[in-house]
Amino acid sequence: MKPINVGLLGLGTVGGGTLTVLRRNAREITRRAGREIRVTMAAVRNVERARQQYGGQGLVITDDGGAVVNHPDIDIVVELIGGLEPARTLVLQAIANGKHVVTANKALIAKHGNEIFAAAQDKGIMVAFEAAVGGGIPIIKAIREGLTANRIEWVAGIINGTTNFILSEMRDKGLPFDQVLAEAQRLGYAEADPTFDIEGIDAAHKLTILSAIAFGIPMQFDKAYTEGISKLTKEDIRYAEELGYRIKLLGITKRTDQGIELRVHPTLIPARRLIANVEGVMNAVLVKGDAVGATLYYGRGAGAEPTASAVVADLVDVTRMATADPENRVPHLAFQPDALSNEPILPMGEVRTSYYLRMRAYDRPGVLADITRILADLGISIDAMIQKEPLEGQEQVDIIMLTHDTLEKHVLAAIERIEALASVSGPVVKLRLEHLG
Amino acid sequence: MKPINVGLLGLGTVGGGTLTVLRRNAREITRRAGREIRVTMAAVRNVERARQQYGGQGLVITDDGGAVVNHPDIDIVVELIGGLEPARTLVLQAIANGKHVVTANKALIAKHGNEIFAAAQDKGIMVAFEAAVGGGIPIIKAIREGLTANRIEWVAGIINGTTNFILSEMRDKGLPFDQVLAEAQRLGYAEADPTFDIEGIDAAHKLTILSAIAFGIPMQFDKAYTEGISKLTKEDIRYAEELGYRIKLLGITKRTDQGIELRVHPTLIPARRLIANVEGVMNAVLVKGDAVGATLYYGRGAGAEPTASAVVADLVDVTRMATADPENRVPHLAFQPDALSNEPILPMGEVRTSYYLRMRAYDRPGVLADITRILADLGISIDAMIQKEPLEGQEQVDIIMLTHDTLEKHVLAAIERIEALASVSGPVVKLRLEHLG
Repeated sequence: MKPINVGLLGLGTVGGGTLTVLRRNAREITRRAGREIRVTMAAVRNVERARQQYGGQGLVITDDGGAVVNHPDIDIVVELIGGLEPARTLVLQAIANGKHVVTANKALIAKHGNEIFAAAQDKGIMVAFEAAVGGGIPIIKAIREGLTANRIEWVAGIINGTTNFILSEMRDKGLPFDQVLAEAQRLGYAEADPTFDIEGIDAAHKLTILSAIAFGIPMQFDKAYTEGISKLTKEDIRYAEELGYRIKLLGITKRTDQGIELRVHPTLIPARRLIANVEGVMNAVLVKGDAVGATLYYGRGAGAEPTASAVVADLVDVTRMATADPENRVPHLAFQPDALSNEPILPMGEVRTSYYLRMRAYDRPGVLADITRILADLGISIDAMIQKEPLEGQEQVDIIMLTHDTLEKHVLAAIERIEALASVSGPVVKLRLEHLG
Repeated sequence: MKPINVGLLGLGTVGGGTLTVLRRNAREITRRAGREIRVTMAAVRNVERARQQYGGQGLVITDDGGAVVNHPDIDIVVELIGGLEPARTLVLQAIANGKHVVTANKALIAKHGNEIFAAAQDKGIMVAFEAAVGGGIPIIKAIREGLTANRIEWVAGIINGTTNFILSEMRDKGLPFDQVLAEAQRLGYAEADPTFDIEGIDAAHKLTILSAIAFGIPMQFDKAYTEGISKLTKEDIRYAEELGYRIKLLGITKRTDQGIELRVHPTLIPARRLIANVEGVMNAVLVKGDAVGATLYYGRGAGAEPTASAVVADLVDVTRMATADPENRVPHLAFQPDALSNEPILPMGEVRTSYYLRMRAYDRPGVLADITRILADLGISIDAMIQKEPLEGQEQVDIIMLTHDTLEKHVLAAIERIEALASVSGPVVKLRLEHLG
């Protein structure tokens, strides 16, 4: 099937990530999309540097964005320049030329989305913007397609990683805002001019987009209430904690009988809520629908490859939807029927994971030596251990061991030998352990 | 635009929920889908009872499933009978008749998915099954469409609410399995014969589906390793806790160089992980992709309306994808362009939420009376309060109050009056508080 030709505007962090992911996972993506998606042109500021870093594989690199949006061979334009201009002009030109557009530009969508979507509608063109909110979390898709049954009641999200990192650090370490901001800047989590992030403007851009797709209203960024975290003190974070709350910078949009709330501000939320425990640069969005109840979506909200994940998902979506033939629908099993794999399912003995082992042993010398010798002989190493005191009047003690990763068949062999020890009574309890890191 | 006619097989919990949601949110769903989606036929066991409960609005109720799948006016058949037969025969018959199918039947998909998808492929028909895994959480869509850029590394999920409820209760209350199971049965969270849930079979059905779409392999339910929670003791839950872990029944599927792991079993996971804190009947699925990193999806995994949420989302998807015209694509703002709403954005003064107020006051009689009088006069009621001891050598104390929901303009008025009190020094700190319940 004919490949889809993509033109990139921008090859910075997200542009580079997009190219990298498309190249690295080309086979996997083609198995899913049913055709190759390849970047054939890219417009950058520094052509020489981009050629050195990303040249080859038939990629034409230019410093003229107009050349990309006007090129007759380009099917989809991906706008990753950021900011309002020239992004807006180039996107509108791409649409005028009948090219579909994918963008990660939240400011552009929040401020000029109404104009852009109207132009796209006129031309029968798609403008996809999953990467504009929540980085790699498919939150636009979840609300726009996954929850179509629902009357959405409200959306509340941690949608700016920089401020969530700062708030997490202020709480963890009891440090004041200024000091943590400096640390975030040193780590590259905050920009030299951090205003957009810390004053809530970036979050308000994203919230404006979420509000529009949740309630079916136009983009109204100018009506968003925006309050940042720069005035927040560590005392208030501590008092909130004492009362059972965490402070997060939330974007909240809610439907009421009087109208729609659209607001970004530091917010106390009960510490037991899952979203209160989203730490560091991670993002999470809570969506309340009348049928589904509360659902939560969590993941990395920024960074080269997480954002590229959303950009490429949009490319696959546009590829599928732009072609009317049934062969380009979402395949039942995510991959095209002729691209299914015959990788074998592993028998349990060959599974590698960590283990919790509990055994009941007589409290006498040498027991632990016998057990640990058996584990060592089978190459099983111990990560943690508890030996409980014997209960009053009992001769036996519980020994609990956590192992490092090992093959299940080795653990089974070890258990058989441990159970055969005279000093161990009854069966060994075996549970598996996953770090999910 | 011509309405889509839906035929339901089954009007039990999920079928009833689907009909209810489609009727209640008809306007919202039409605004999204661009055309009406209406249930015109339903096959049930007890026709009389169903007529009493759901009759009217042009709904034809029959006890003959064949009449639904063979009716020429039906566009989409929704199978909500559960079990393998007659579900399988009816679904295959619907496909043979050229009708798209939506199903919530995990056992059917896990065991006969390969046959069903092959038949659907031959006829150019769609079979959608979002409701088969994770209830209302759009997890199939997230993996199949949202993460297409990624080489998926592993998926780990709490995908059975009954067992998660039992494990949460065992841990919270230190009770043994049998006792909590009996409680779960009394509450309707566990069935009279709980085998499917507690032995992990239901989770293995769902995991089989997740594995297939994550890795592009056929359904291989017979190769899934399945171990339930019925032998789990409260002692092991407590020991795990001491070591910093929670025990959850996880479905895990992982890609390794040797093959694919496919296993359901009780699993220790670090207590600090978000997924370790998913309690009660809630479900959550963690997906690790090479580009996006770890993403988490959380929500209700069962119940009439959460499951109906997924069924209806599939109906909207099939409606959109089955028609080739651009007008039926996913609209940019989730709702059709001519169905956007002009609901106003509320000014902040009209926003109703709870508040955290911190004020610094001189430690003298009557201060608290003055402050609480001001709040009462403005109709603001207090939910919690802390008054801190004055620090050594200081005359002032911090007073922190949490309010119940109130209008922001009333809080602003109260703050103005409180700041005017001679006994209060400096500005009142105001933060908003959301329960997100």
